Amino acid sequence: MNEMYSVTVRDHFMVAHSFTGAVFGPAQRLHGATFVVDAEFCRSSLGPDGIVVDIGLATDVLRAVLSGLNYKNLDEETEFLGRNTTTEFLARVIFDRLTAAIRRGDLGTDGRGIERVRVTLHESHIAAASFEGGINPEILKSSNPQI
Amino acid sequence: MNEMYSVTVRDHFMVAHSFTGAVFGPAQRLHGATFVVDAEFCRSSLGPDGIVVDIGLATDVLRAVLSGLNYKNLDEETEFLGRNTTTEFLARVIFDRLTAAIRRGDLGTDGRGIERVRVTLHESHIAAASFEGGINPEILKSSNPQI
Amino acid sequence: MNEMYSVTVRDHFMVAHSFTGAVFGPAQRLHGATFVVDAEFCRSSLGPDGIVVDIGLATDVLRAVLSGLNYKNLDEETEFLGRNTTTEFLARVIFDRLTAAIRRGDLGTDGRGIERVRVTLHESHIAAASFEGGINPEILKSSNPQI
Amino acid sequence: MNEMYSVTVRDHFMVAHSFTGAVFGPAQRLHGATFVVDAEFCRSSLGPDGIVVDIGLATDVLRAVLSGLNYKNLDEETEFLGRNTTTEFLARVIFDRLTAAIRRGDLGTDGRGIERVRVTLHESHIAAASFEGGINPEILKSSNPQI
Amino acid sequence: MNEMYSVTVRDHFMVAHSFTGAVFGPAQRLHGATFVVDAEFCRSSLGPDGIVVDIGLATDVLRAVLSGLNYKNLDEETEFLGRNTTTEFLARVIFDRLTAAIRRGDLGTDGRGIERVRVTLHESHIAAASFEGGINPEILKSSNPQI
Amino acid sequence: MNEMYSVTVRDHFMVAHSFTGAVFGPAQRLHGATFVVDAEFCRSSLGPDGIVVDIGLATDVLRAVLSGLNYKNLDEETEFLGRNTTTEFLARVIFDRLTAAIRRGDLGTDGRGIERVRVTLHESHIAAASFEGGINPEILKSSNPQI
Repeated sequence: MNEMYSVTVRDHFMVAHSFTGAVFGPAQRLHGATFVVDAEFCRSSLGPDGIVVDIGLATDVLRAVLSGLNYKNLDEETEFLGRNTTTEFLARVIFDRLTAAIRRGDLGTDGRGIERVRVTLHESHIAAASFEGGINPEILKSSNPQI
Repeated sequence: MNEMYSVTVRDHFMVAHSFTGAVFGPAQRLHGATFVVDAEFCRSSLGPDGIVVDIGLATDVLRAVLSGLNYKNLDEETEFLGRNTTTEFLARVIFDRLTAAIRRGDLGTDGRGIERVRVTLHESHIAAASFEGGINPEILKSSNPQI
Repeated sequence: MNEMYSVTVRDHFMVAHSFTGAVFGPAQRLHGATFVVDAEFCRSSLGPDGIVVDIGLATDVLRAVLSGLNYKNLDEETEFLGRNTTTEFLARVIFDRLTAAIRRGDLGTDGRGIERVRVTLHESHIAAASFEGGINPEILKSSNPQI
Repeated sequence: MNEMYSVTVRDHFMVAHSFTGAVFGPAQRLHGATFVVDAEFCRSSLGPDGIVVDIGLATDVLRAVLSGLNYKNLDEETEFLGRNTTTEFLARVIFDRLTAAIRRGDLGTDGRGIERVRVTLHESHIAAASFEGGINPEILKSSNPQI
Repeated sequence: MNEMYSVTVRDHFMVAHSFTGAVFGPAQRLHGATFVVDAEFCRSSLGPDGIVVDIGLATDVLRAVLSGLNYKNLDEETEFLGRNTTTEFLARVIFDRLTAAIRRGDLGTDGRGIERVRVTLHESHIAAASFEGGINPEILKSSNPQI
Repeated sequence: MNEMYSVTVRDHFMVAHSFTGAVFGPAQRLHGATFVVDAEFCRSSLGPDGIVVDIGLATDVLRAVLSGLNYKNLDEETEFLGRNTTTEFLARVIFDRLTAAIRRGDLGTDGRGIERVRVTLHESHIAAASFEGGINPEILKSSNPQI
């Protein structure tokens, strides 16, 4: 059976947004949220220093990704035009940006060993959403990552 | 590698019960518990509104399922006769009722896309139990769900 | 030395807002927050039923107060014109509305025994604000509460 | 202005009970609860070892007090006959038993310096109750504590 | 799709240690940590008593494993010579000791049904690490486990 | 009755230390701890910006104070020679350093309005300690604070 190590770091961001669609009820109005974010980095063996990833780098990269969203009105961000910035959608956005950072080498040598990432956004004490997925090793070895 | 989105909602219920079997020690006496329940709904892609499931419906369905157990003495419930209503057993009961609700369409159109459910019951600050499993797509498409 | 009982109930609300003043840095932009609210009701002795307050009523009243703020852009609420709706300011607003509800009798007979209220708003996993104060017994007995 | 040190230890107990009175609604039925208990011991200066109280003794005494309630049906306990064992009532019961233990010297030499105790019972992720009060220094010096 | 039950118990330990390698920055100095440990035991069906594992035994075994580390300077433990006792490394150490206990039968008859274990160490409110893996059934049936 | 606003910020630090005295049992050995710190700043009215204190400054000042302790072996710090660096003692140390920062004006204009500070250190999921006290207004107005 497969074995897996992980390291998780937590940070948060605070945004305004509104949703389109009757399913959202009162959340169709402009409102906002604090998202407390857990970013979990997974690999099946440890690097030579005995770590999954440099936790300092992981913290910095997560903060950098979240600062691209923090203190914003997501309704005005052109990259999200026509999309509902739901908690699950934002979990995917953050996953994509973290994995792009891994491919760029921003998480260092150990970061290149990461095989899987799980991003969880807690929007209140009673609701959360997550996205998790693997990192294609071929893409990792590629010299020109796309994202 | 497989990708997965999830949405989790939290609620609680409070019951009395007792257990049968020497392994339970003092818990063989009639006692009780608060169970704080996390219901996690998983699917590999988002629906057209950008959601895993209507979180309002998910909250309502979880509350409805828990209200069938809340403020009861489980020792007197005929459906549990001869069974130990342990935390892990109750996690399965709630899983079965939530997935039956999904099959009935109680979680709406988006809810029909749910592929997997994980139910976690926190019984104290130091103990929890969970059950998770998939939802058979064939059964989902069936016109007469059994449960 | 003085003795005190308390009962605390928790709920949350989600708003957009912006702040005015250089001290707020990037929070001068329109952004948002989830506020997880703890409302603590205090009295020095229990009522005849052995309670501080009917916890069902306390939960309902807190929800009613928060629904007056939930899913709103506070910048557009006329009652907050020219004010910074900081976490500590909002704690006071909620305190005022809860204590007004107590004076109106919305928390029932037991609620009339409440002597002190503390409202805490958690805006993230690393920041919170609160307001607490007493309830003037004279005002409580008054037939025409002002708020 | 007054200064205060405190040490808090956490433990839990699980009981069945029912309530009498229309105010309790469905909680009039036999049900149960997990109570996660925070016992906070306060004093205005530290003892010679630099502590409020021996935390090992505090943990043991809290456990002993809770074991007198744990895995019981409180409706059958003669000491609670005719009383509603609400969360706030139980906070007071535990306060009384902890302060009696302090007077007996069960918390050691440092424990005799404790001036105030606060007991908080968390009954779910959204509800808690507490009782706090002082310890009469005269009674502490008394050679025959009553409780 | 595969189904899985789990039971999780929580405890903690407190150690001093230092790390070797520039990646650790100031953590190369002798410092320390509290590790709050969640040990999750997984199996695909329940035993005859309706449990994953005797939670009392699971709690005792976790405590025994952690007491082998608690209140120690890990830099002076010969078994860790030349290793960085990172959070992820310690998660694996605890996993190995828990699964060895399972193989020895310390978790009782039900414990022999455990198929997978996940160990998570929370080192602060913003960082955690984990290790999970399966338990080889062949090794389980073996009469002389190695560890 | 007195009214009070507060703002709380959270951070952490990780240290090694040992204790002297039989009361500490195994904690007499060199071990360590993570301390998650809540610093609560209190005042009876809000400043002109509607805040208790600039939360950015409060966060920075708390971080600066904790960085003076973080990743250290407290047994080797000359300032703590002959003292047991218990959790309650460290709460007082941090209180003293935060209030000195307030007196120096490090928390800005709003910070000068702070009347009371409470510092809580969580050393595990089951234990915490705190120190709280007032800030002498006379000292605040003094041109040469002593600490």
